[in-house]
Amino acid sequence: MRDIIGYLGGFFIMISFIPQVIKSYQTKSVGDLSLGMIVATLIGTFFWILYGIFIKGMPVIIMNGIFGIIVFYQLYLKIKHNKNTPA
Amino acid sequence: MRDIIGYLGGFFIMISFIPQVIKSYQTKSVGDLSLGMIVATLIGTFFWILYGIFIKGMPVIIMNGIFGIIVFYQLYLKIKHNKNTPA
Repeated sequence: MRDIIGYLGGFFIMISFIPQVIKSYQTKSVGDLSLGMIVATLIGTFFWILYGIFIKGMPVIIMNGIFGIIVFYQLYLKIKHNKNTPA
Repeated sequence: MRDIIGYLGGFFIMISFIPQVIKSYQTKSVGDLSLGMIVATLIGTFFWILYGIFIKGMPVIIMNGIFGIIVFYQLYLKIKHNKNTPA
């Protein structure tokens, strides 16, 4: 039960950036997104993957790994399309 | 050492939405932000606070609690200013 709740939390965080990536990809408009938010999220995720390796926690590594890839793609979209939006 | 890395991860995630909240507050422009991203993050954070209560893990509760408050404020800003931006 306890673990299910933990996995549910991880799952929702893991997928959270998917709608954002889809939106940014489709609209090519990323001016309202904070670069600092994306970068801080990536740094935090990096530390958690490291933590997962330390504790040999496969779910932590996999969930944060997938999340990290999605957020990294969001960073790419932010940098690529930022010039399109004057902000 | 292991715990420090875990706390560092939690810390960066905890503060990650602060630059986004500041940006949205100042620009009043939130059209590029995905509502789904904010809501999924809130749901995930809710489950993690619950998980923290289950395992009696104060750092998990506090870090996710602070993060949840910040993301909830971001949700408020998104809803409040969404009409300002045609998107």
